[in-house]
Amino acid sequence: MTGSPRRKPRRRPNPAPTASIITGAKRNIPAYDLLQEEGLELIEARSEQLLQEVGVRFLEDPTALRLWQEAGADVQGDRVRFPPGLLHKLLETAPRQFRQHARNPARAIDVGGNNVVFGPGYGMPFVRDLDGGRRYGTYRDFENLTKLVYMSPWLHHSGGTTCEPTDLPVNKRHLDMVYAHLKWSDKPFMGSVTAPERAEDSIDMARLAFGTEFVDRNCVIMANINMNSPLVFDHAMSGAIRVYAAANQCPVIVPFVLGGATAPVSMLAAVTQAYSEVLVGCALAQLVRPGAPVIFGNFVTSVDLKSGSPTFGTPESALASYAAGQLARRIGLPIRCSGAFTSSKVPDAQSMMESVTALHASVLSGANFVLQAAGWLEGALTISYEKLVMDADYLGAMHRFLQGLPLEDESFAMDAFSEVGPGGHFFGCAHTLRNYETAFYDASLSDRQSFEAWSERGGEDMVRRANRKWKEDLRRYEAPPLDPGVDEALMHYMAQKKEALPDIWH
Amino acid sequence: MTGSPRRKPRRRPNPAPTASIITGAKRNIPAYDLLQEEGLELIEARSEQLLQEVGVRFLEDPTALRLWQEAGADVQGDRVRFPPGLLHKLLETAPRQFRQHARNPARAIDVGGNNVVFGPGYGMPFVRDLDGGRRYGTYRDFENLTKLVYMSPWLHHSGGTTCEPTDLPVNKRHLDMVYAHLKWSDKPFMGSVTAPERAEDSIDMARLAFGTEFVDRNCVIMANINMNSPLVFDHAMSGAIRVYAAANQCPVIVPFVLGGATAPVSMLAAVTQAYSEVLVGCALAQLVRPGAPVIFGNFVTSVDLKSGSPTFGTPESALASYAAGQLARRIGLPIRCSGAFTSSKVPDAQSMMESVTALHASVLSGANFVLQAAGWLEGALTISYEKLVMDADYLGAMHRFLQGLPLEDESFAMDAFSEVGPGGHFFGCAHTLRNYETAFYDASLSDRQSFEAWSERGGEDMVRRANRKWKEDLRRYEAPPLDPGVDEALMHYMAQKKEALPDIWH
Repeated sequence: MTGSPRRKPRRRPNPAPTASIITGAKRNIPAYDLLQEEGLELIEARSEQLLQEVGVRFLEDPTALRLWQEAGADVQGDRVRFPPGLLHKLLETAPRQFRQHARNPARAIDVGGNNVVFGPGYGMPFVRDLDGGRRYGTYRDFENLTKLVYMSPWLHHSGGTTCEPTDLPVNKRHLDMVYAHLKWSDKPFMGSVTAPERAEDSIDMARLAFGTEFVDRNCVIMANINMNSPLVFDHAMSGAIRVYAAANQCPVIVPFVLGGATAPVSMLAAVTQAYSEVLVGCALAQLVRPGAPVIFGNFVTSVDLKSGSPTFGTPESALASYAAGQLARRIGLPIRCSGAFTSSKVPDAQSMMESVTALHASVLSGANFVLQAAGWLEGALTISYEKLVMDADYLGAMHRFLQGLPLEDESFAMDAFSEVGPGGHFFGCAHTLRNYETAFYDASLSDRQSFEAWSERGGEDMVRRANRKWKEDLRRYEAPPLDPGVDEALMHYMAQKKEALPDIWH
Repeated sequence: MTGSPRRKPRRRPNPAPTASIITGAKRNIPAYDLLQEEGLELIEARSEQLLQEVGVRFLEDPTALRLWQEAGADVQGDRVRFPPGLLHKLLETAPRQFRQHARNPARAIDVGGNNVVFGPGYGMPFVRDLDGGRRYGTYRDFENLTKLVYMSPWLHHSGGTTCEPTDLPVNKRHLDMVYAHLKWSDKPFMGSVTAPERAEDSIDMARLAFGTEFVDRNCVIMANINMNSPLVFDHAMSGAIRVYAAANQCPVIVPFVLGGATAPVSMLAAVTQAYSEVLVGCALAQLVRPGAPVIFGNFVTSVDLKSGSPTFGTPESALASYAAGQLARRIGLPIRCSGAFTSSKVPDAQSMMESVTALHASVLSGANFVLQAAGWLEGALTISYEKLVMDADYLGAMHRFLQGLPLEDESFAMDAFSEVGPGGHFFGCAHTLRNYETAFYDASLSDRQSFEAWSERGGEDMVRRANRKWKEDLRRYEAPPLDPGVDEALMHYMAQKKEALPDIWH
């Protein structure tokens, strides 16, 4: 950070839309049960078999191996095999629901139960917009994206590595990213996982913002831990799990399961594998600190068997989401599910076809935390400014969807039928006047004008409208207040850390 | 028809993809139950109240009024009110499942139960393609679209008025449309509903193709009957219901329910109204001929309260689909549900965002017949050549989705885990080699190449790929054989009918 010029946001008369704080969606509709009891029991049984017979490797992490041996697992070399029942037993201490606090207390989120939290894309090296095309992400992009996420009422979580700020050294950029989340947003966020010491730095910075004691007693930072599927935790990943869990912070355990590549060419087997991997990661966190919050991460899709590339937003991955949601509910863990996934290189029809398929399945599967819910392109290689606001608009629709159809007398509108009668219209009737303002979700980027009106105003497709929207959002952005003492402490911490390390670029 | 030049399709060495006949998808996954018993009973009770207290008008149809009076309804002027239980009683004769035959017996479809049938867009005055933009539909377009629908293995039904052939007189074009369905396709199709005599013509032509006796005993033609919601059947519509039902053919009873305009500004009330309207239409068919096939048509969405325009692919309409599916299953009627709906003027991101939202809800709601499943743009004002093939590709994915996750030993792939072990990959293992060919749906229009490979090949978005696809499909098209005697009889019938009528253009 630091050194990158930062304009003072212009004051505008209109309050930002973020004035209305939405800290998560409430699910008032049932989750979809794809499988019956028999199927779920079969998956659980095959998972036990897999964990006992094949097991999992922990690469270069003697601490983890020692913990597993003490817990009663069968450890041979770096391979760990699990007796039936061990992981389920360990997971009894994992909370079914917990709160992640935010710098702004009003933005704390509840994870688990009937709560659904949306966060932006994660981990993209490239950014894209309609004007500049595709390019490596910079810290300026990272700041912009953090601000755009802050501006959307439908994104409750600031995310983590929303793009890789590739203009900063790879061993220091985590400091700048955590700083940006704390400085330019007041929503909950995620810390670094690329090395245990970077995880420590992230938590240290959270301590500066929240206070050391508060952090030890409360979750204030999450971490997205991708496994090296199949069935491997490398040192960085298991190390990060241990660091976050020890600090009572929340690792999200996410297998990277691609049927046909990192998993068998069958969704049922892929789900079974992913479930097994998640249990191991979440149980490790409980071994380190019983009661530490953990999240069951679901990332199951397939490869395109012609090109070897991963696929996204497919029917197979939607089915996997539904099964994973059921398994997570049975074991009582909050679940992270798939976001606005797509293989498309541009925010075109394919991108929304795939993203909506994934998101709809995620929401109906009972997801509690939907990271990657906005901005995705190109299998997470690129985050798009336009798609970020397009997806966020769709997440608003998902908020409405999750409300379901409340069975109130007013909703049956019997007085309207009596007033209007056959052949009339309901535009001006009393029931409409009482309810029209809140009746339907107003999708701001969906054009519903007539062809003629749309043509006269330039005939813009959704991407062009989104381009205007994110620019307008950045213009209207106002930074949430940050205690100057905290700001100074964060800056000081970063400066010290940066001075102590050489710059590493790859 | 006739007079429009018709090229003989070129013979190509490769068999058309339609060589593999798919006559419908089988649902191997449960439908989604949004509402609990309490909610469904409430809707049913309010519907009874609405039908008894407010009732329905039948405009200028003394026959229908007489039938209702004889059945025990309260008829005053053109208003019909229904005593509780009457409609449910009448609907006991409606088949829960029936077969619509096709000219090619192998393409017969089963409607109801676990069967899901997809058909194309219906009723669009405009067509659009990437080269020619938006223009009024012609009979040439109608033929092209019929051929494209024939070419897709994922569209089981040829539809009806896929576009309005506006270059033909409005009082004669139904003849040409029925002819085109019979000549250029051998899939099941729909007849005219715009006037009772045009409905009769449609059925007469079906008799020429299938034989009079066969038609009296079997369903060979469907008809999409849109109501004048709220709570009105005009003469054309109730007349068409009577004509089709009398001939033992299948009317699809479709309310046109837009919350805030033709229904109250509440989805629960809109669903209750639509349900009530459907019951009346389906029961009328049973009054005319007990046992005649009927379909519960669901078309419930809302208006944009800023512009007054209808909205499509919204969260509210998805919720309505789920509720309607449950109501249809309870009363034991096959259900037609929403298709690839969108307000977008072009096949952009908005279009697929909305279409997939509607289609996913339709498929999960338990839809048996999804008309409007391909080609939609602009609230059914325009059918797009590109979107037709894009949507059809997505319907292929829905076929895979409906298969669910079969619980077979082979699907658990335990041998693959033993073979590969932690940290390996599954590309070449025995289980993959046994299963890769059929494991995943191959979405032909979804690009999954790397950014570099995609860029080198022109960096096409989905619409450009779709443009090449439909042109290639038309080049590869081969007409299914039609008995020359039948062809001649159809031509003769049309010529006679046309000669007897003046040309009417509006």
